[in-house]
Amino acid sequence: MPETPHLDAIASPADLKGKTIGELRIIADELRAETIDAVSQTGGHLGSALGVIELTVALHHVLDTPQDILIWDVGHQAYPHKILTGRRDRIRTLRQGGGLSGFTKRAESEYDPFGAAHASTSISAALGFCVARDQRGSDERVVAVIGDGSMSAGMAYEAMNNAEATNGQLMVILNDNDMSIAPPVGGMSAYLAKLVSGGAYRSMRKMGKAMAGVLPQSLQQAARKAEEYARGMVTGGTFFEELGFYYVGPVDGHDLDALTPILRNAAQITDRPVLVHVVTKKGKGYGPAENSADKYHGVVKFDVISGAQQKAPSNAPSYTKVFGTELIKRAERDPKIVAITAAMPSGTGLDLFGQAFPERTFDVGIAEQHAVTFAAGLAAGGLKPVCAIYSTFLQRGYDQVVHDVAIQSLPVRFAMDRAGLVGADGATHAGSFDIGYMGALPGMVLMAAADEAELAAMIATSLEIDDRPSAFRYPRGDGEGVEIPELAAPLEIGKGRIVREGTSVAILSLGTRLGESLKAAELLAARGVSATVADARFAKPLDEELILRLAREHEALVTVEEGAMGGFGAFVLQMLAARGVLDGGLKIRTLTLPDRFQDQDKPELMYATAGLDARGIAASALEALGVPAERAARA
Amino acid sequence: MPETPHLDAIASPADLKGKTIGELRIIADELRAETIDAVSQTGGHLGSALGVIELTVALHHVLDTPQDILIWDVGHQAYPHKILTGRRDRIRTLRQGGGLSGFTKRAESEYDPFGAAHASTSISAALGFCVARDQRGSDERVVAVIGDGSMSAGMAYEAMNNAEATNGQLMVILNDNDMSIAPPVGGMSAYLAKLVSGGAYRSMRKMGKAMAGVLPQSLQQAARKAEEYARGMVTGGTFFEELGFYYVGPVDGHDLDALTPILRNAAQITDRPVLVHVVTKKGKGYGPAENSADKYHGVVKFDVISGAQQKAPSNAPSYTKVFGTELIKRAERDPKIVAITAAMPSGTGLDLFGQAFPERTFDVGIAEQHAVTFAAGLAAGGLKPVCAIYSTFLQRGYDQVVHDVAIQSLPVRFAMDRAGLVGADGATHAGSFDIGYMGALPGMVLMAAADEAELAAMIATSLEIDDRPSAFRYPRGDGEGVEIPELAAPLEIGKGRIVREGTSVAILSLGTRLGESLKAAELLAARGVSATVADARFAKPLDEELILRLAREHEALVTVEEGAMGGFGAFVLQMLAARGVLDGGLKIRTLTLPDRFQDQDKPELMYATAGLDARGIAASALEALGVPAERAARA
Repeated sequence: MPETPHLDAIASPADLKGKTIGELRIIADELRAETIDAVSQTGGHLGSALGVIELTVALHHVLDTPQDILIWDVGHQAYPHKILTGRRDRIRTLRQGGGLSGFTKRAESEYDPFGAAHASTSISAALGFCVARDQRGSDERVVAVIGDGSMSAGMAYEAMNNAEATNGQLMVILNDNDMSIAPPVGGMSAYLAKLVSGGAYRSMRKMGKAMAGVLPQSLQQAARKAEEYARGMVTGGTFFEELGFYYVGPVDGHDLDALTPILRNAAQITDRPVLVHVVTKKGKGYGPAENSADKYHGVVKFDVISGAQQKAPSNAPSYTKVFGTELIKRAERDPKIVAITAAMPSGTGLDLFGQAFPERTFDVGIAEQHAVTFAAGLAAGGLKPVCAIYSTFLQRGYDQVVHDVAIQSLPVRFAMDRAGLVGADGATHAGSFDIGYMGALPGMVLMAAADEAELAAMIATSLEIDDRPSAFRYPRGDGEGVEIPELAAPLEIGKGRIVREGTSVAILSLGTRLGESLKAAELLAARGVSATVADARFAKPLDEELILRLAREHEALVTVEEGAMGGFGAFVLQMLAARGVLDGGLKIRTLTLPDRFQDQDKPELMYATAGLDARGIAASALEALGVPAERAARA
Repeated sequence: MPETPHLDAIASPADLKGKTIGELRIIADELRAETIDAVSQTGGHLGSALGVIELTVALHHVLDTPQDILIWDVGHQAYPHKILTGRRDRIRTLRQGGGLSGFTKRAESEYDPFGAAHASTSISAALGFCVARDQRGSDERVVAVIGDGSMSAGMAYEAMNNAEATNGQLMVILNDNDMSIAPPVGGMSAYLAKLVSGGAYRSMRKMGKAMAGVLPQSLQQAARKAEEYARGMVTGGTFFEELGFYYVGPVDGHDLDALTPILRNAAQITDRPVLVHVVTKKGKGYGPAENSADKYHGVVKFDVISGAQQKAPSNAPSYTKVFGTELIKRAERDPKIVAITAAMPSGTGLDLFGQAFPERTFDVGIAEQHAVTFAAGLAAGGLKPVCAIYSTFLQRGYDQVVHDVAIQSLPVRFAMDRAGLVGADGATHAGSFDIGYMGALPGMVLMAAADEAELAAMIATSLEIDDRPSAFRYPRGDGEGVEIPELAAPLEIGKGRIVREGTSVAILSLGTRLGESLKAAELLAARGVSATVADARFAKPLDEELILRLAREHEALVTVEEGAMGGFGAFVLQMLAARGVLDGGLKIRTLTLPDRFQDQDKPELMYATAGLDARGIAASALEALGVPAERAARA
């Protein structure tokens, strides 16, 4: 662990008060070292955190948190904030079961007034706090820190467009590191670059240093001065001014001499919202991060000296990689295939596709609403769009899926990665709801992959469906290690498969838990219970013939899915009820994710808690069959 | 019917080619008369249609539809477009069963390349068409017409931010009538007003007239000229320019002399997307519309001469009115109650609330994403936010409900109006999915009102829940005429009620179909079948005690809800399965909306088709009980 004598003296942000800029600079250096060391042990989002070290110190020096409201957009850059706000003793539990969240979280600290994890929510939330403050008549300051990547989301625009909701103070800090996860896209990004490249940036730095010494003490005066100063310094910023903000910047986010007085003054502007444009460097101050392409956006455990990450050896490619690779194979044969990502080219595996087909790959930024309707337009225009969005983020485009894709029956293909539990990323990133929210839509074809070969087949299937929308879900992490055919054949729509034949109980798995279902069958066999295991493949349309046969030929039927209630098991039940199959009795259980948000943990522990591992599935089967619990427990 | 000799000669847009501006003006006048007459007979969206009469004529004169792609945002202003594009013979079937949709619709005409109904989708869709065109190498023009109200939505910003997706032609027409449904809000609206009030508006008109005669014939030259012209004329427009657009305008949208050449020239700009800022007047050319506050946004049948609308007499206030009135009552007693609407103050009944509490009412524009997270911020700040958004539009804020409200367990109250079928507004506006997508969320309290007194009680209940989110759904239209207590008492959370005691079959209704369920019980009684009828009130948490009792004490159980599969009935089934109640057999049927999108029609016919009227419910009960179909049919 690094030597951090100055940081050690900071028990809470109050201890930063009265420090000189020189002292703050030392504390920032130690905070950086501590952050690097902690993340080297836990893994996590490093690059973003390193970019805001000085900003974090300056904010906590200037503000009076937790009375003042400080909201970090996304929250994955908030590790240094956590260290400074009483959580240093647990910082090496980041993203572990029972440990600190990798994002801001209300339940974790009063210094996290609004949790996050998905992008672009901070200004909306900040406005809510402003209005509550205005109505209460109190005077705490409200600050939102939002990245330039998050600015590509319409939600941030909606919030800025509504800044008039407060008549009082609101400071938005645009943390411009010219990166989201991937390089930035879009008109806004180009505009910000233009602002930064304007000549005023350099003189701003000089001015900041000069200002530090000469600022008047009176807050009232300081605020006025700051305003004049800020106004004189802008290189443009009219985009924000036209939405009703003062624009201040750009300012060097690593120069505490410049940053601290500007933040102090900007935080006192109360007649209009102010946007402070801060320029930072992702990965700042750690060579291996600065020099890597993704600036160590997300890392596993690593060696601090060399920067080498300890990637676990894997026997199989990730589902993400399989998706990217298979889509390339198809696109080589079909020029109509195009792919859309919302700021996640590497996360979705479309970075590979983009290298192969740059003209057929569209990164729209953090803009899921647009992504979906853009894909609908592409389909209406005769192309074959594949819209690759994590299950949890597709929630952002749900209305567009309903209104623009499903109602018009346009053949958009949704590749829903990270469906189900996501381990260290926790509840905010879990893909729990897609089976329900997609499966409820008339005409949708909804598949879930049990292994990487199935994923390849589902990609093929989806690309052949040209008269209606389709979607396939697959999990985070590595595949099962099964062989993938050179060119996977498409599946018959709405047909599942029997994987193991048995007699007493049928386990009908949708998607990822097929392996555990097979293991459950082994456990059951050891108890003398013969289990059939089937892979439903389709949540919609249901394989009614298969399900009816399973119901007819077995004493019990257990459905298994890695998703919330109201999904596959629910559809099976409603179909069976409508057909009268339940009239005469069926020992049926529908296993789903539990009806609560599961905090981050090791995946296997999360599955066990959810009852979706082999033991849990077998236990449910035994319970359905009426085998006494003691016997099951003993077994 | 009005005399329209010139319009009669226009069988398709091709017939507008070669017409002089003077002739176009006469056609526009006749088109306006025809539109007014048609809507006077059908009801519908009149004000928006009257505002774009000249724009519609000019666009179809300039473009070559349907080869050129013309996309109307929302689509409710497209009646004149329908009249000009071969649908005049059916224009008096607008919004009727089997008739023309009140919006644009792909299935209806090749002149509707992309359907709509929800706002702000047009630019995204247009970009899709552009990319498809670019890849095909063809040269059709792509035009999106979007209102200033729709510009408040983040989705429009996301699309503009991505305009770089096309390297070719794209024209966005900003139809600025300074109104969405309600007066506009937000920084963008103020900015547009500034552009319009700039001096160039008038000179633009003059220039437009001058240009008409002198433009060079060569397209190439014309395009260059148009660009120079446009650039010279702008009053600012830097907001759009900073996102990568040429900005042209503002231009008078009712002056065909100005409008026609500008559109012709702007449509030839191919090196960058162009935004043409057109200023129109909602309700233009029809006195009663121009003089009414909402500019006849949506009307029922009316008398053309007087403008008097034939409102049907009602015995009960609308659910919307009850919501607004009850919320005022509560807010008088509790200063922490605040209300949020997304551009629908009158549609949600919050216009009344806004008059009573202007400082506690927030119209955020068409910005559901922001609305939800803003509400979450208000709740985190200690206020009691009530977020009133139609069921269908809440789909726009689904991720925010999950991520910012439910995961943080913040007590935001969602008032979901227009839940279920919506008659003339059709599939795009039906609130079909909210029970599933809200009910799947851990911790959510989800209620559905069976009548207006229940709605009042649910509002009271929701306001008392201060540790987690809650939502209540209620339908379009008038209440049942039941008495509402002076101050409704809150309900016990998760408790339903028995409304009628019987013995053979239990009908468990959630929400609106309770009246029909009671009628179904009467029908059953006439067949000698004794039915219990219960009102579930809560889709979450379920009243397990009640449901188990109903299952235990009856031969059959029928659940009834005005929502899609995967909702209330599904939750009941999954609970019963988990508890082993289905093991021994239960004649259970879960009635839902059908698994297809239902086109507009009279509500009673839509319910009959869905099997959710008394007859359908009774038939399902008889089927479950095994009463022969013939006997049921004879009865």
